[in-house]
Amino acid sequence: MTWDILTVIGVVAFAVSGSIAAMEERYDILGVIILGLVTAFGGGATRNLLLGIPVSNLWEQGNLFVIAITSMFIVFLLPNLWFHFIKQWMFFDAVGLAAFSIQGALFAVDMNLPTIAVIVAALLTGSGGGIIRDLLAGRRPLIFRDEIYGLWAMLVGLVIGLGLVNSPIEFYIVFVLVVLLRMLSVYFGLKLPKKPIYRKKSKKV
Amino acid sequence: MTWDILTVIGVVAFAVSGSIAAMEERYDILGVIILGLVTAFGGGATRNLLLGIPVSNLWEQGNLFVIAITSMFIVFLLPNLWFHFIKQWMFFDAVGLAAFSIQGALFAVDMNLPTIAVIVAALLTGSGGGIIRDLLAGRRPLIFRDEIYGLWAMLVGLVIGLGLVNSPIEFYIVFVLVVLLRMLSVYFGLKLPKKPIYRKKSKKV
Amino acid sequence: MTWDILTVIGVVAFAVSGSIAAMEERYDILGVIILGLVTAFGGGATRNLLLGIPVSNLWEQGNLFVIAITSMFIVFLLPNLWFHFIKQWMFFDAVGLAAFSIQGALFAVDMNLPTIAVIVAALLTGSGGGIIRDLLAGRRPLIFRDEIYGLWAMLVGLVIGLGLVNSPIEFYIVFVLVVLLRMLSVYFGLKLPKKPIYRKKSKKV
Repeated sequence: MTWDILTVIGVVAFAVSGSIAAMEERYDILGVIILGLVTAFGGGATRNLLLGIPVSNLWEQGNLFVIAITSMFIVFLLPNLWFHFIKQWMFFDAVGLAAFSIQGALFAVDMNLPTIAVIVAALLTGSGGGIIRDLLAGRRPLIFRDEIYGLWAMLVGLVIGLGLVNSPIEFYIVFVLVVLLRMLSVYFGLKLPKKPIYRKKSKKV
Repeated sequence: MTWDILTVIGVVAFAVSGSIAAMEERYDILGVIILGLVTAFGGGATRNLLLGIPVSNLWEQGNLFVIAITSMFIVFLLPNLWFHFIKQWMFFDAVGLAAFSIQGALFAVDMNLPTIAVIVAALLTGSGGGIIRDLLAGRRPLIFRDEIYGLWAMLVGLVIGLGLVNSPIEFYIVFVLVVLLRMLSVYFGLKLPKKPIYRKKSKKV
Repeated sequence: MTWDILTVIGVVAFAVSGSIAAMEERYDILGVIILGLVTAFGGGATRNLLLGIPVSNLWEQGNLFVIAITSMFIVFLLPNLWFHFIKQWMFFDAVGLAAFSIQGALFAVDMNLPTIAVIVAALLTGSGGGIIRDLLAGRRPLIFRDEIYGLWAMLVGLVIGLGLVNSPIEFYIVFVLVVLLRMLSVYFGLKLPKKPIYRKKSKKV
């Protein structure tokens, strides 16, 4: 039950995130809804694809679709002024990241996949939707450049893949930790190391 | 039989649409052909993937591949002057949209999927190829911004998904209506509502 | 055995190619690793998807993942100065192209797919990873514009699809030929014909 609530919060946060990206790119209402749906469900779809779970399982989540679309319509109708308070969403997005990456890791564990696949499943479920969102919005994916995001999903995959986390209570602790870590990353502007290189003529390698 | 002709027209129109986008981006002949193929067959492939139909069914359409590639070679060899008459293609593209979205919706109905999936199937089959085309051409997908396009495909999915359309004659009426609606959208510059918002620093939401 | 070595070289070359693209875009270490993995394994995954092979077969290549990630870490830690010698990589990349396109074509032949599918399989396995890499790096795919690349993969698909190549020795000859052809393409700046057209208002076709 509690878990369902977290999933709903994650879906809403991701759907809103996608619809805001679409509005920033001056997409129309259809674009807003498609980007929202893709952000909310694209990560799970990609994970299913790579793990060999039928992608069409997607359609069993009828209620979540309705919730996602409803929340996007609300955002579309909100006065722009409200978006000044957008930082609030950061918290919901962190909840989505935590809920989705745990869910993705559990999927992979249920299928007895190796730890590397569990990590990838957590990463894809938690951040795959955001990557597709950015591509459809014509942007370079944020998770590759901004404050630490994907790493927390991968850590979830690691601890679950290694079997370090088993009981429901432990999952909730992981959940809270991921939300905290993501919030702290944004708050303190924590980034992973980079090593930019010049783009030369022979960029084809 | 008549239906086959419509599919062929749709394939040709979409293939040409992809190859023109490639030529606009100064892609070479291989890029022209790949973008054309992706535009003509990418929508159906994406639909198959999301509906749980084997994507490899694609390969049973051997004749359509030959037709698509042939038409792209013809376009590649045409004098540029001809492209001034490009508006003519708009009609073929509308035919493609209508034929593909009906075909996609019927696929989903055959699988007893819920109405939402039928709508998505119609949308994906009708416009998925164009989205992939735009991504591979480095553009923001047109259907999210320009004259009404995807909505007509979704309407097809809705009426077929709700079972309002059954007999062949009714399908042809839907077909003609979609072509008309799409042509009118372009002619009158009909667009869906937008609500652009400023892109702020905290664009990550 | 020898074949395994070629695959390893191909994986390393493609992984490095992806990680360099990521560093050029100022992505962080996670972006570097994801782009590298996607470049090395994305072509095979796309091929599996389109040929109806379970995409999850990917996970049976555990060792290759370790090799790819290790080589990306080494590249990440290398002094930038080294990248002036980057032209050397062109050779490894050509090896990757040759090894992957032959491997992809054989996959399709094993499944008794028609020649067109064999050609597409060779093309996807050899160049699909690079296309995904370029999309995730926010670039127009290089293989559509630069020195001849995909054509050599397609030729591999053609000769294998038509059954002109059967014995191991013949495969090695094809392999060496593809490496040579690719190197010559870069060396002499060989490009496929283009026919750029102006992008007009009615770009929707």
